[in-house]
Amino acid sequence: MQVKTPVTIRRKFHEVIYEADTFAGKLFDIVLLFLIIISIAAVMFESVASIKAKYGFELMVIEWIITIFFTFEYIGRILSVGKPLKYIFSFYGIIDLLATLPAYIDLIFPGLHFLLSLRALRLLRVFRILKLGHFVGAGNSLIEALKKSKDKIAVFLFAVVVMCIILGTIMYMVEGPESGFTSIPVSVYWTIVTLTTVGFGDITPQTPLGQFISVIIMILGYGIIAVPTGLVTAQFMSKKEEEQSDNNTQSCPNCAAEHHRNDAVYCYHCGSLLNE
Amino acid sequence: MQVKTPVTIRRKFHEVIYEADTFAGKLFDIVLLFLIIISIAAVMFESVASIKAKYGFELMVIEWIITIFFTFEYIGRILSVGKPLKYIFSFYGIIDLLATLPAYIDLIFPGLHFLLSLRALRLLRVFRILKLGHFVGAGNSLIEALKKSKDKIAVFLFAVVVMCIILGTIMYMVEGPESGFTSIPVSVYWTIVTLTTVGFGDITPQTPLGQFISVIIMILGYGIIAVPTGLVTAQFMSKKEEEQSDNNTQSCPNCAAEHHRNDAVYCYHCGSLLNE
Amino acid sequence: MQVKTPVTIRRKFHEVIYEADTFAGKLFDIVLLFLIIISIAAVMFESVASIKAKYGFELMVIEWIITIFFTFEYIGRILSVGKPLKYIFSFYGIIDLLATLPAYIDLIFPGLHFLLSLRALRLLRVFRILKLGHFVGAGNSLIEALKKSKDKIAVFLFAVVVMCIILGTIMYMVEGPESGFTSIPVSVYWTIVTLTTVGFGDITPQTPLGQFISVIIMILGYGIIAVPTGLVTAQFMSKKEEEQSDNNTQSCPNCAAEHHRNDAVYCYHCGSLLNE
Amino acid sequence: MQVKTPVTIRRKFHEVIYEADTFAGKLFDIVLLFLIIISIAAVMFESVASIKAKYGFELMVIEWIITIFFTFEYIGRILSVGKPLKYIFSFYGIIDLLATLPAYIDLIFPGLHFLLSLRALRLLRVFRILKLGHFVGAGNSLIEALKKSKDKIAVFLFAVVVMCIILGTIMYMVEGPESGFTSIPVSVYWTIVTLTTVGFGDITPQTPLGQFISVIIMILGYGIIAVPTGLVTAQFMSKKEEEQSDNNTQSCPNCAAEHHRNDAVYCYHCGSLLNE
Repeated sequence: MQVKTPVTIRRKFHEVIYEADTFAGKLFDIVLLFLIIISIAAVMFESVASIKAKYGFELMVIEWIITIFFTFEYIGRILSVGKPLKYIFSFYGIIDLLATLPAYIDLIFPGLHFLLSLRALRLLRVFRILKLGHFVGAGNSLIEALKKSKDKIAVFLFAVVVMCIILGTIMYMVEGPESGFTSIPVSVYWTIVTLTTVGFGDITPQTPLGQFISVIIMILGYGIIAVPTGLVTAQFMSKKEEEQSDNNTQSCPNCAAEHHRNDAVYCYHCGSLLNE
Repeated sequence: MQVKTPVTIRRKFHEVIYEADTFAGKLFDIVLLFLIIISIAAVMFESVASIKAKYGFELMVIEWIITIFFTFEYIGRILSVGKPLKYIFSFYGIIDLLATLPAYIDLIFPGLHFLLSLRALRLLRVFRILKLGHFVGAGNSLIEALKKSKDKIAVFLFAVVVMCIILGTIMYMVEGPESGFTSIPVSVYWTIVTLTTVGFGDITPQTPLGQFISVIIMILGYGIIAVPTGLVTAQFMSKKEEEQSDNNTQSCPNCAAEHHRNDAVYCYHCGSLLNE
Repeated sequence: MQVKTPVTIRRKFHEVIYEADTFAGKLFDIVLLFLIIISIAAVMFESVASIKAKYGFELMVIEWIITIFFTFEYIGRILSVGKPLKYIFSFYGIIDLLATLPAYIDLIFPGLHFLLSLRALRLLRVFRILKLGHFVGAGNSLIEALKKSKDKIAVFLFAVVVMCIILGTIMYMVEGPESGFTSIPVSVYWTIVTLTTVGFGDITPQTPLGQFISVIIMILGYGIIAVPTGLVTAQFMSKKEEEQSDNNTQSCPNCAAEHHRNDAVYCYHCGSLLNE
Repeated sequence: MQVKTPVTIRRKFHEVIYEADTFAGKLFDIVLLFLIIISIAAVMFESVASIKAKYGFELMVIEWIITIFFTFEYIGRILSVGKPLKYIFSFYGIIDLLATLPAYIDLIFPGLHFLLSLRALRLLRVFRILKLGHFVGAGNSLIEALKKSKDKIAVFLFAVVVMCIILGTIMYMVEGPESGFTSIPVSVYWTIVTLTTVGFGDITPQTPLGQFISVIIMILGYGIIAVPTGLVTAQFMSKKEEEQSDNNTQSCPNCAAEHHRNDAVYCYHCGSLLNE
């Protein structure tokens, strides 16, 4: 944890920014968390016409305070980290840069509004929420379990997409543009809306045959949701069992092998007697 | 169960209110259950304009009968319990107080209608339904299992909210106010409506790109529901196994084998007699 | 299976109606299955105004053919079964009676149309579909697993209803009649529509606060679906394990005890050596 | 893998089409995958009126290039495979034929447009997506698990359909044509839309009784989704356990203990050396 650097101020910076043991480190974390949330709220409220009309100036002031803080934080992180380049091109390095850039681009090239549109700049600012990732542990067990069922979930999603394209085309054939199924892409979109049980209701089948096929799509969607659920559950379960079987903490006194069965009397690796 | 108090009447009260062994105790419980349900029904029906116009007086009479009963019950609980203050400030103590207060406030300060609005008072009365909690066992195994997966569910919900903010902002960018995505908060609201597969259909994407992103949101929502389900299922399963394996704690006095059947008399491993 | 009756014709009837081993028995089953499906289709099509106008007479003829067959079947079942009264008052006995009665009531009391309404008679005929239950095995493992989780599912549903009443009342407070939340019952109905992720979209929140509470209801509904799923899955799993552990078919040569552990060497009940 | 044929060119063809070890084989696979996706995209875009008006000629050219390639591929597969007839009448054989036929029928019988309609021909072309199946392994573990729970899922779906017919008829009785429940089939369609939590909202109950029954349908649908999920999860779990326990089939030559770790060298039970 303690990175050795010749400059004391750099070590101090590192402590404040990357660690949470000291008072300054904790304060920095709380301020950062607070500013990220304020920043996201500001971006969201700015998009509401009535709020922007009333509090546009206040939102701009908040925006600049946050941008300046994030700028100093970004520079601080680069200066205090051991390998600056690795940080700059890491996921959070790029996110931290994107959190400050939009405001400056807006300031330096005001004419860019017309080229890149103000809206797109606002979009970039929302990615600041990913800065919250600094607070989440890297080795998340949830993501691990999902990663392990990745292949099977991909096969499942592929099958779902194939089904939706075929069923969507059939629905386009049966219903036609009169019922809102104006083209195959729209029809496939509707099929996915129905299969995932979202069901907006902006487009609905009007013919009896179309309603019959819809019923099949719905029951299919209702039934096959079991597949990803079953996959992930099975993954979680086996992970849990693994953890439990790791509870056996005895290690062989001869060869130090671990993970013995709970009822093991002899070491599975060298055959010597295990101590009770 | 039997609380020792010098006054016999207080012990009698305690028996009737807190216990269900005697005839009076059972009768009290049934009357209470009946009145809670009647009360909730009255609050609900009162909000229907046509019913209120027709049966307004009857509803008021029912309301006052219930309020007076609840008042006596509340006073009775305070008088008969060992530690009155602990009860008063407990969850059910506060609920029991809220079940009687609104009607009295309404009576004493009729002008308050204009300050606090009659609607808000009505709202408080609906919390009487939580009085049903008196009948539910405290140590519920369902809630226990949910509590254990609490941390992972929180991480999952946090990830969902972050996703919805980012995807909602993108949808606002793509669709814009013309399609009903009037601001980022509305757009994030729509994204949550879609991701959770609720799909009201009051706002729907109109552009092909917007529909394409919607499809991704839907399939995401359809897929990641597997995560909380998997978590809770794994929790239930391990709880069940725990219960099953905890059923038998005897170990063989000769060879120390464990996990015997509950009706085992002899060790399954070495055949020696098990101690009862 | 073979019921001993003095009359040979009765035994013959019993074979045809209750058993499927002989050719006549199989034929009877197929004709019955076919007629039930035809009958349900006829009831459904009769309700479609355009079809009734065109094929009203044909539907009536089909109806009477089916009714006469069902009448003979009902009489046949009563005559051929060992305990006629037990059958008459059993679930399928009542269903079989209801399958024939409506048509006769219609014939005998044509004036009843105005009293009981033709629609209600039609409704009764749809319950003929439950006659299909004659083909389904009684000891269904699915229903067994559901029955075992019955208590926990009831607690869960009770909690859902309590939540929906409280959240529905809050939504009524926040949104009010202007947004379609005309009364608490309607508001509770909307809350259940949203929580179960059905989301009709006929009523939708209009105020920002209402949309915020909706989002909480949706995420709640999206999350707590894990509870019944987890319960039922855990039940299925433990049933499967039970079945698997019953796979050990060795029985003790001394005391005939069964259900030994798979690695058992000695009988858990009498301690004698098991044969390999 | 290596099929012995007298003609070398046939073996070469077989290598290119059916195998992916050589450079030509890999290239063929990539081109095929690419053309299938292009073809599906072309069919979809052709259905969009504005795109067809603008790029109709380009789409037709793409269509013919793909058709010619698929024709050569089909002929190649027949010539190079050991048992041509088996391939021709196999699932993928029929799909491969359907992938080329529509365009030729369109060319040879242009008048057929009026008989069979251009739309139906377009539909057949979308089945080309099933050609992607050539890239998916045949023995898919997902499909296996689903096949094993097939019977139980069928019983579940049968029960759902019976419930929907009865509840749909009741809803037709209660709501009637005024609320959009114009006939029993429409009413059953609505019940399935609601039970599967799709909830289009094109038809919604208007009477309090109808809304009450809807609430029961919704909670039913919300609850019973647990059944297929539980079935499939239990299937996945037992498959996983099977795989894990099947991983090691060695048993100790001395004491016959089983279920050794995969890296076990000595028996965990008696300590004697295991045979490799």
